[in-house]
Amino acid sequence: MRTIDWDGSDVVIIDQTLLPHREVILRLHEVDDLAEAISMLRVRGAMALGVAGGLGIALAVTRAKERGHDMVTTATEAGARLAATRPTAVNLSWGINLVLGQLDAGHAAVVACANGLLQADIDANRRVGERGARLIADLVRQSGTGDPDHLRMMTHCNAGGLAGVEWGTALGVVRAAKERGIVDEVFSCETRPLLQGARLTAWELDRMGVPYRLLTDSAGPVLVTSGKVDVVVVGADRIAANGDTANKVGTFSHALAAQRAGIPFIVAAPEATIDLGTPTGADIPIEERAELEVLEYGGQRISPDGARAWNPAFDVTPADLITAIVTERRTIRPDQGQKPSDVDTDEVS
Amino acid sequence: MRTIDWDGSDVVIIDQTLLPHREVILRLHEVDDLAEAISMLRVRGAMALGVAGGLGIALAVTRAKERGHDMVTTATEAGARLAATRPTAVNLSWGINLVLGQLDAGHAAVVACANGLLQADIDANRRVGERGARLIADLVRQSGTGDPDHLRMMTHCNAGGLAGVEWGTALGVVRAAKERGIVDEVFSCETRPLLQGARLTAWELDRMGVPYRLLTDSAGPVLVTSGKVDVVVVGADRIAANGDTANKVGTFSHALAAQRAGIPFIVAAPEATIDLGTPTGADIPIEERAELEVLEYGGQRISPDGARAWNPAFDVTPADLITAIVTERRTIRPDQGQKPSDVDTDEVS
Repeated sequence: MRTIDWDGSDVVIIDQTLLPHREVILRLHEVDDLAEAISMLRVRGAMALGVAGGLGIALAVTRAKERGHDMVTTATEAGARLAATRPTAVNLSWGINLVLGQLDAGHAAVVACANGLLQADIDANRRVGERGARLIADLVRQSGTGDPDHLRMMTHCNAGGLAGVEWGTALGVVRAAKERGIVDEVFSCETRPLLQGARLTAWELDRMGVPYRLLTDSAGPVLVTSGKVDVVVVGADRIAANGDTANKVGTFSHALAAQRAGIPFIVAAPEATIDLGTPTGADIPIEERAELEVLEYGGQRISPDGARAWNPAFDVTPADLITAIVTERRTIRPDQGQKPSDVDTDEVS
Repeated sequence: MRTIDWDGSDVVIIDQTLLPHREVILRLHEVDDLAEAISMLRVRGAMALGVAGGLGIALAVTRAKERGHDMVTTATEAGARLAATRPTAVNLSWGINLVLGQLDAGHAAVVACANGLLQADIDANRRVGERGARLIADLVRQSGTGDPDHLRMMTHCNAGGLAGVEWGTALGVVRAAKERGIVDEVFSCETRPLLQGARLTAWELDRMGVPYRLLTDSAGPVLVTSGKVDVVVVGADRIAANGDTANKVGTFSHALAAQRAGIPFIVAAPEATIDLGTPTGADIPIEERAELEVLEYGGQRISPDGARAWNPAFDVTPADLITAIVTERRTIRPDQGQKPSDVDTDEVS
């Protein structure tokens, strides 16, 4: 099942805000429809946003061609509109800019480039997953802190097939471990306020057939130090040149706990998530979302009238808390002083 | 407003599960009614549970006297039944046992002792609050990390008047700081799964007239390291002899972040919360609550059918992460190697 796709004319997505209870497919005909879907998190997750950005440009040039509008102007405006919907996610503007680079080559080239991104995401995710599963088994074997044939993992938010096109990064690691028969159980933090862990990761783990338990985000750190898990594995929304990693808010707390517990903390992400133009985590803009996401749940007010909220969507995990960053082509070890900007980490298995 | 009281015949509580939207007073006539109220968290919070335990024995002997039952047998059975409702909270069995100690002296002595606990809680809370506010202002002044006349605090769960009889410990510190005019803003973590922060702490801060913002529990650690707060102040459900402190799950994550940020992490609690019979945090039993609390919210399913959950109610913050434990009669400094079991920390201001 693909969470985002191109049907030759429209962008097709599964509406993630309705999972796990309803599986609704949306056909997005206009760039504005896609912008709405991105800002409402109907399509979400770092890699899916990269593909969504690219397909958004394909959508813009396809509509422009049909309507006889200027392709370059339409696509450029669409790119700016789409990029503004989620400012922290570097993949979104990466996908947009990559496809915008094909504008001079014409409509067919733009559409082909966007579809190439989609295929590349599927391939990259599989490689991230396989590399990650192998690394985790090796780390657990070396440290002797767990059984590498019976891994117990914790994850946060949803870095699964739903966050990409169909395979996932952090959950791609789980998927690859499941294929090898070396995963016993996965703990998924519910991920307030929008509950991507309770809704989306749980839905994917259920379909994968991997035993799982949910927990509140605040129970993550004590789970990590309790000896009940061997590793924490998460995705990323942006990785700075020094290895500092922005991911869903709460990730930082689990990394602090993993360091205290002495268990590996693994970031699984495609190379496109690494932004060498961002020197450190301090340079990553953090999206603050609507206060109502915290003040209400499911349309039900949970706080007194007049209450205010602070609602950052992401936090930054400093590189010194990260054991390894696994991409489709290399394993970067911040715990050994490596940085994403080091060329000598290329192709290290 | 008292959250728990004795009207001469019954235990009277405000039903905290209905706050902040409805203020409902319950009159509990039977020990079973009180046991239900405790296990459903209609009355909750470390100190209120101590008082509830004591008043529960007063309730048992009063009913026994009216009905001509054996007072000692009835009260002993009531104590066992009440103590089993919340196994982590040491204050509950402390209150029960203290009042059971008066059984030989007769009905009037038992009732007087329980009411003495209630008065002592009010007095102790005020002293905890005043000592805590003074300490925090001093620590912020000494470190130069904030402005001691414009404190910005973060708290977790509800250690407020609602958790005691009427004043609170962590929120008693806020209340005392408010009286001195030295608090600018309080951040309250929502405290999943039962949202005591979003519902109860917000309600109290609103009534106190202190500006506040809510945040998800997972945003607590990044708030702490962001420079937006000067101090974290929390209550406690049980403090071991070495200073390890059990409090609402999530507290540990904020303590990890406070250590990383270099800001004070303060535990505000009455002496009754210190259990010298518990050597370390590893000896504190941690209550695991119903999975449905995580899998549902407000009666609405948020996870796939068949999902399981792990739902610890508390976590243990190791003493090495705690700057100070403030009680009604002393300030213990774990960051300076002091322990609750040290006699020489008595009466230190």
